[in-house]
Amino acid sequence: MSSLADIFWAERVAVVGASATPGKTGYNILRNILEGGFRGQVFPVNPRGGEILGQRVYTSLSEIPGDVDLVVVVIPAAGVPAVLKEAAAKHARGAVVISGGFREAGNEELERELVRVAREGGVRIIGPNCQGLNYTPNRLCASWPLITRSGPMAVISQSGTVAAAVAGWAEEEGVGISGCVALGNRCDVNEVELAAFFADDPATRAVAVYVEGVADGRAFVEVGRRLAGKKGLVVLSPGRTEKGARAAQSHTRSLAGSHEVFRGVCRQVRAVLAEDTEQLYDFAKAFALVSRPLGPRLMVVTSSGGSGILATDVAEMSGLKVFDLEPEHRRVLADVLPPHCVISNPLDLTGDADAERYRAAVLAARDIGVDTFLLVFGDPIPGAAEVVKFLRAQVPQEIFVSCLGGGEVGRDEAARMLAAGVPVYPTPERAVRAIAAVYRWQQG
Amino acid sequence: MSSLADIFWAERVAVVGASATPGKTGYNILRNILEGGFRGQVFPVNPRGGEILGQRVYTSLSEIPGDVDLVVVVIPAAGVPAVLKEAAAKHARGAVVISGGFREAGNEELERELVRVAREGGVRIIGPNCQGLNYTPNRLCASWPLITRSGPMAVISQSGTVAAAVAGWAEEEGVGISGCVALGNRCDVNEVELAAFFADDPATRAVAVYVEGVADGRAFVEVGRRLAGKKGLVVLSPGRTEKGARAAQSHTRSLAGSHEVFRGVCRQVRAVLAEDTEQLYDFAKAFALVSRPLGPRLMVVTSSGGSGILATDVAEMSGLKVFDLEPEHRRVLADVLPPHCVISNPLDLTGDADAERYRAAVLAARDIGVDTFLLVFGDPIPGAAEVVKFLRAQVPQEIFVSCLGGGEVGRDEAARMLAAGVPVYPTPERAVRAIAAVYRWQQG
Repeated sequence: MSSLADIFWAERVAVVGASATPGKTGYNILRNILEGGFRGQVFPVNPRGGEILGQRVYTSLSEIPGDVDLVVVVIPAAGVPAVLKEAAAKHARGAVVISGGFREAGNEELERELVRVAREGGVRIIGPNCQGLNYTPNRLCASWPLITRSGPMAVISQSGTVAAAVAGWAEEEGVGISGCVALGNRCDVNEVELAAFFADDPATRAVAVYVEGVADGRAFVEVGRRLAGKKGLVVLSPGRTEKGARAAQSHTRSLAGSHEVFRGVCRQVRAVLAEDTEQLYDFAKAFALVSRPLGPRLMVVTSSGGSGILATDVAEMSGLKVFDLEPEHRRVLADVLPPHCVISNPLDLTGDADAERYRAAVLAARDIGVDTFLLVFGDPIPGAAEVVKFLRAQVPQEIFVSCLGGGEVGRDEAARMLAAGVPVYPTPERAVRAIAAVYRWQQG
Repeated sequence: MSSLADIFWAERVAVVGASATPGKTGYNILRNILEGGFRGQVFPVNPRGGEILGQRVYTSLSEIPGDVDLVVVVIPAAGVPAVLKEAAAKHARGAVVISGGFREAGNEELERELVRVAREGGVRIIGPNCQGLNYTPNRLCASWPLITRSGPMAVISQSGTVAAAVAGWAEEEGVGISGCVALGNRCDVNEVELAAFFADDPATRAVAVYVEGVADGRAFVEVGRRLAGKKGLVVLSPGRTEKGARAAQSHTRSLAGSHEVFRGVCRQVRAVLAEDTEQLYDFAKAFALVSRPLGPRLMVVTSSGGSGILATDVAEMSGLKVFDLEPEHRRVLADVLPPHCVISNPLDLTGDADAERYRAAVLAARDIGVDTFLLVFGDPIPGAAEVVKFLRAQVPQEIFVSCLGGGEVGRDEAARMLAAGVPVYPTPERAVRAIAAVYRWQQG
């Protein structure tokens, strides 16, 4: 097992720089570990001692009785190497260094010292200058914002904000995360090792990565290949323009390599490239929730003619086929649908469709050569979630959903479907792009 | 004034087919008119009489004392022409025909009869087979879902679902709508006349249109030209692929013309083409909220280095310039910012930035040749909304915002900004694409 497992599964966690002041990072991190339901022991450390959030505060790491597994560091940069030495003495396996003020601020020497001390002491570092680590199987949210909903998506990001955004959407939508790690300056642990950890992590089915250039191309390819067969790897990386590349280089203070080379590497490992932050989430969500083969033949079932057409356009542009129905298949559908429905693909159940009409349509269409269903609920359709859950058990095809224009009913039904693991998207177009991404990936 | 004004400003509205059964369209429409706060008089009509929602029900239109201005029709198709005759006798100026079962269901003859009767009686028709009409200046929501928040965006759509989705987002975000009209089968009133109405409507600053081909290309060009100078017109139209075009033709039962021709028409009238439903909303929102010239020189101010880089990439790909800072401009910024900030464009205020740091940065940057600001709040930053509101009064440039990764604080601040009319977007990329769309439009 990767030694990173010792960090993710830490049982005894110290927070060095714990603060009693709400709003301060040293307070927020401690509170999130506690409120996140961490089942191990937490040791706040602050030279002032006392109590924070009902926890005894130790004046130093060495004051803590026994060893610690993980140290979360939130003190000014200059003091961090000394803390790492103490952490090593406590046999800590890892340190999450939230503190900034290292290479990103021009203090290369301090960062080198940090790495030296950590290597000598056998302590792995996540960060510095990072937004921490969250791992829901261990209920360990040493990060912010507080995200506790567990799910099949792992997030690895050189940007704390992108990490928080993607993980935050997963929380909001009920998809949930397995883990979320912000790389910060990436002085030691990098995205490749983390991807390797999540490749073997049974709680993870998809990995979303934001990086400004890969730390170790060769290792990335190797890990990517391990992931390739079984888990979706979605990558967002800026630097597609000269200005963007220059900004990326100045942000990470390292030569990121050309975006073209990076794209090539991603292609080799079957990583799916996302166009933007939203797509990083959309695609990772699809990989997290999809478990069946998709195939190119898409059937769109909708109560909204317009939405069906919009979906058709994007599907055809994305390499999917909104295939024509054969006469015998039309008959099969016509047999179970009211005469005013438009029997075609997209299949327009029209605006008076209730959930039962979707049930009848999908059951009738299960054997007419459909690879994947997209159901668009374009109206408030009570009971939609129940029907979709039923259909997933009845038909072999994967069912994607979009709910839009249905007001509160639509939002409720969508939330229920997401909670049941159905890939639901806010628009038909976003659903179709996610289907196409997973389909292409499955093709190899 | 266009005669459509008589419909939008109706004072006496009859709902023919009002129902006492919650969930039925004839109930929902009546309830939405009442709950929407319509200040005129409402007359439910149903042959059974009685009372619905505390309102006396008339057994027929003719039973209503005096004239009516507008008739909303929710009865089966076959009876609609007769209702239109009665409406004409009541000197109604318009009818919103929700009922389906006309051309879209193969009943071309019935629709022709409907048009004939309406023309004879001088009654304009919206629909049939449509999702109704909403006009917030008159607090008239003869549609669903119930949307009451007034704002500067008008929505015209051949798809009820696209209309409800776009208007629903405007409601949720606090942007609000001036009007929302679903065209349905578009047997009489079309998008061109409606656009002309909204062009002159003081409550409207931007018009979002979804159409599957334009009803009258020449008229569209004329109206588009009237809008062009003063109000943004954003158009989403499917049919970019052969399958999509075919589906569109079957939906509207009319030849839509090639998408290429349509794109040409849009270019002539400076309509901005949206790629998808989300972009239709995003762009219309920008047009609704922006009142200053944008220019190509974008300055990105962020607490998140990664988000700044992502914004830079998309900006440069969209024809904007994330311009380099001159040495003297760097000095101006360095004077007011802590030394660990990365003084460049994108300007990285770093993860410990508070709202005051944004204030200082933007005030310092106001005179260094910035055309437009994009502020990315990539962390929970309390007070962000107050600072943005202050800055809008202090600097001549338009300020766009993206809040992401900030959890609940971020959502609260974003909501406060939107309520104050600030164009806020969920991701930096969506914000940048909206800026680019308005900028290109302003260029002519």
